[in-house]
Amino acid sequence: MGEPFAVRLFDRVRSLGPLCVGIDPSRQLLESWDRPDSVEGLEFCALAVLDAVIDTAAAIKPQVAFFERFGAAGYRVLERLLDDARDAGVLVVADAKRGDVAGSNVGYADAWLSDRSPLRADAVTTSPYLGVGALSPLFDLAAESGRGVFVLAATSNDEGRALQSARTASNERVQELVLRSIAELNQRADGRGVIGVVLGATRDRPLFDLATVGGPFLVPGVGAQGATADHVARLFERCPPGTVLPSVSRAILQAGPDRAGLRDAARRWRDDLSQALP
Amino acid sequence: MGEPFAVRLFDRVRSLGPLCVGIDPSRQLLESWDRPDSVEGLEFCALAVLDAVIDTAAAIKPQVAFFERFGAAGYRVLERLLDDARDAGVLVVADAKRGDVAGSNVGYADAWLSDRSPLRADAVTTSPYLGVGALSPLFDLAAESGRGVFVLAATSNDEGRALQSARTASNERVQELVLRSIAELNQRADGRGVIGVVLGATRDRPLFDLATVGGPFLVPGVGAQGATADHVARLFERCPPGTVLPSVSRAILQAGPDRAGLRDAARRWRDDLSQALP
Repeated sequence: MGEPFAVRLFDRVRSLGPLCVGIDPSRQLLESWDRPDSVEGLEFCALAVLDAVIDTAAAIKPQVAFFERFGAAGYRVLERLLDDARDAGVLVVADAKRGDVAGSNVGYADAWLSDRSPLRADAVTTSPYLGVGALSPLFDLAAESGRGVFVLAATSNDEGRALQSARTASNERVQELVLRSIAELNQRADGRGVIGVVLGATRDRPLFDLATVGGPFLVPGVGAQGATADHVARLFERCPPGTVLPSVSRAILQAGPDRAGLRDAARRWRDDLSQALP
Repeated sequence: MGEPFAVRLFDRVRSLGPLCVGIDPSRQLLESWDRPDSVEGLEFCALAVLDAVIDTAAAIKPQVAFFERFGAAGYRVLERLLDDARDAGVLVVADAKRGDVAGSNVGYADAWLSDRSPLRADAVTTSPYLGVGALSPLFDLAAESGRGVFVLAATSNDEGRALQSARTASNERVQELVLRSIAELNQRADGRGVIGVVLGATRDRPLFDLATVGGPFLVPGVGAQGATADHVARLFERCPPGTVLPSVSRAILQAGPDRAGLRDAARRWRDDLSQALP
């Protein structure tokens, strides 16, 4: 892979700007694009978005649920999308939100972060309900293979707030527990910055100093979910340049299937975000 | 599908006993079975376990991570395992621990709970980090298609305790927040018992009365992780018969690949659990 994920992300954000385009080929999207709700519709949609944003997006973020929906055949399409993105030099964050006990996370690490896997991506999103510690097989393989892991801290939706704001025995909220655990792990990993965080742009600034997390930030909730480039800039104002990756999905996808429409929407968001972020 | 999941589970537990066999074809297991670390090894292992426990296990619980490890080809094997189990009348709980925002959970619902999906299982495990409410597309499709959903409450591993014991604004622990939310949803669903809970056998009894959850319990942590049939019986002593499904993985799988060895180990656990549980 050459350089570690954090370095590749920094380089790509510096040259293209900080836009991540979410690829969410849901049933509704296929319908609104006038495409069949089938593996063929899925493949058309996924590859059309990649093609339209190759020169604009630092990264794409396929939502794995919409590929899994078609079973093995949908995963074949995801493998093709990953291959094509790799060939084009576009970074891929597989939005899988995987998470299990450590022994099973070895399987998820192999799936998304191993050089030999057909599903290998530049980074994968993970869920810490079974503990940040249980995710260590993912962190270890990411460090080894030059890939990245984003762990959910505070998500962009409302339904998760009660849980993510619950207080641990040391009176720390769950979202800060996640942020602090990751900051400690990134420090031990000698600044490699393997472990990133998912932090919704629609949320308030956490009590933990984001500038000390030491890894990249994946930031959903921009566009259709209500947050603007300025929200993102304020939330991450003290974070190092090239570490903040806002992700826009619907606000770009709704401009398709027309290639020029998709490209122009991506450019507008890219320009907005480039201007607002350091 | 005919009867709802809770009814099919009750019937099968009554006739065979309450054993769920975890199918965890990890790299280590394939190695210890002297099989290649490949799709062929995976397929051999998964089908051999099913074949050996068809007459003993109420359900099997394939760990999806170990299939996903091989990408689309691994998912083809999982589809084959699901087909064979369906033909044999063995219930399948897909241990996927999926969970995302509601819009993406529509994709996961379609993948695991839709009549038309090649991955359709009898039930799927889910993770509530983004909120129990965000899982509603899975609950809705399960109710419609006669399938089930198990939501993680307290898991069998240690790393998750700090998060799962954190206290919400109303001074309730996260695990009880999950249990109470599900009890309320099951009540509204008019006793259909669509929504079950994952509760590790290695954990203490929650403060929420388990007898009022109104759905089935999937209980990992039995066998190699230390809990016995008696632990399970004590944890669920007031729960209705046919709602508790303890899952044993390594303690049975290590008896393979010999068919008689696997079958005998499954029988011993089944007999132990049948005797201990009501």
